[in-house]
Amino acid sequence: MSVQFADARFHFSTFSCVFSSLLLSGLLVSGVAVAKEVSRKNKPAMADIIKASAAADWRALIPENTLYLELEKGRVVMELAPDFAPKHAINIRALVREGYYDGLAIVRSQDNYVAQWADPEDENPAKKREVKTARKNLDAEFSIKYAKELPFTRLPDIDGYAPQVGHANGFAAGRDPKTGMAWLAHCYGAIGVARGNESNSGDGTSLYVVTGNAPRHLDRNITVVGRVMQGMELLSSLPRGTGALGFYEKPEQMTAIKSIRIAADVPEAERSKLEVLRTDTATFKAVVEAQRNRGGDWYKVAAGYIELCNVPLPVRAQK
Amino acid sequence: MSVQFADARFHFSTFSCVFSSLLLSGLLVSGVAVAKEVSRKNKPAMADIIKASAAADWRALIPENTLYLELEKGRVVMELAPDFAPKHAINIRALVREGYYDGLAIVRSQDNYVAQWADPEDENPAKKREVKTARKNLDAEFSIKYAKELPFTRLPDIDGYAPQVGHANGFAAGRDPKTGMAWLAHCYGAIGVARGNESNSGDGTSLYVVTGNAPRHLDRNITVVGRVMQGMELLSSLPRGTGALGFYEKPEQMTAIKSIRIAADVPEAERSKLEVLRTDTATFKAVVEAQRNRGGDWYKVAAGYIELCNVPLPVRAQK
Repeated sequence: MSVQFADARFHFSTFSCVFSSLLLSGLLVSGVAVAKEVSRKNKPAMADIIKASAAADWRALIPENTLYLELEKGRVVMELAPDFAPKHAINIRALVREGYYDGLAIVRSQDNYVAQWADPEDENPAKKREVKTARKNLDAEFSIKYAKELPFTRLPDIDGYAPQVGHANGFAAGRDPKTGMAWLAHCYGAIGVARGNESNSGDGTSLYVVTGNAPRHLDRNITVVGRVMQGMELLSSLPRGTGALGFYEKPEQMTAIKSIRIAADVPEAERSKLEVLRTDTATFKAVVEAQRNRGGDWYKVAAGYIELCNVPLPVRAQK
Repeated sequence: MSVQFADARFHFSTFSCVFSSLLLSGLLVSGVAVAKEVSRKNKPAMADIIKASAAADWRALIPENTLYLELEKGRVVMELAPDFAPKHAINIRALVREGYYDGLAIVRSQDNYVAQWADPEDENPAKKREVKTARKNLDAEFSIKYAKELPFTRLPDIDGYAPQVGHANGFAAGRDPKTGMAWLAHCYGAIGVARGNESNSGDGTSLYVVTGNAPRHLDRNITVVGRVMQGMELLSSLPRGTGALGFYEKPEQMTAIKSIRIAADVPEAERSKLEVLRTDTATFKAVVEAQRNRGGDWYKVAAGYIELCNVPLPVRAQK
């Protein structure tokens, strides 16, 4: 046996006899399967679709919306989503520019859930860091009135947590046509504003990133402000905290935050030059379909479905 | 602001005025919401339900099905599911008992996907470890003919990857009434048998554990043999491999496997005495409902839904 893969995620080739015979022997339970089989023949792979994409299918990260979380082990690049949380984006920029986060720490890493940073001295009035220019209270932005001009590429797949799901400017979102509201979804890599029991108690001084199976029950219960675009592994592979809810019990277990900076404030030469696939393009739709019904030799059964948080949102070095 | 939580997962209290007024002001979009509001009043919390559970609601892990993966940092406890993969369970026990895994390594950690172990010398015929007593080829057990005597607690919530989902003996599973087949789902912590392109190329010499958002598209494409019951954080927090698909590029980056043992072969005093909540009990249904529609002060909107892989499967020290 040669090295076995749990998945050949990027390996697609032409429709194989193995796959075909399996389908015919046991899995042809409806006419839908026949249609799927036909449509999967010569199906382009995600990697091929991305390779063949046009420059216009991509957009650079917006420097004023891009944050660099600098850790000893490297940089986490995040993008804010002011379309969904405009007041929080403003406040987080203010916190960054007053240096609020610099020297704080990642205080929590709960397995299959979140990594979170905050002021470790938050409950010590004598040592607690003061907020200088940013607002100390902000109304919740759990969901927003959906703006017509915001592009929303709806995913046709059903979802249990929202009447409609899809993508807006590269962010996974839910939408309710009855209320006209939309909200960012708690997918892996989503960045949320930690809060206490009151809806308006999250000010951005403590943020968390989803590091586990999408905790979508948090949707519309907390303000999601953006997502991690690069360096996710620096947060997801942190040792888990042994205290309640994954909080670290000793300061020396915490990971120090060297700084958080806004890309627009960083010299050009030091910026991470990334671009993200536009989610309002045919290329993106093709990527989603390539993952919804995977072709190639490895897959024996196509899912025929893709869950919102399994949709890839490709990010790459700017070309 | 005191320390903020991204979630008070185990914090439930009586129905609050904050929640009530929010529901009335903007979220009462249908009669369903009213029913939910009423049903959430005085709703017991998951922690309370577990506290009040009877001894008969729990079962001890079955020693012959329980594996201890011993790493330098600690023990990962796993339980096999022979109801779903009987031949693979037999083969993995044979591999364990011939010492096949002892001294091998975790060769792969791909972010938001899997950690996988194997023989690092697998592609070197001179150094490759020989399989002695176990079978070298096994027919796939991607799904099984559903046995009537297997208890299946169906989840009423919709699922995009399977016609029906639910739990059988503590394992998350999908089911298709049209074909009479059932299969284990790729939830966080699921253990799968890595394979090459051929369906029967997975023999259990290389296993992987899901460490990211549930890759349910793998369901029915690979044999799932069980799940991690304790020590998941030892696998999920491993540094990610920098090679393709998260494989480590140098032997010194890999985590050594001291041994894998079957609990039945381990002296009583060295065993991890754990018990798991039975999934065919009223207590389990109450746990699921407590998570589907969370009560308490923190949550402002109840999801009204729970995705299969977000269903908690409580494991605790044996009482």
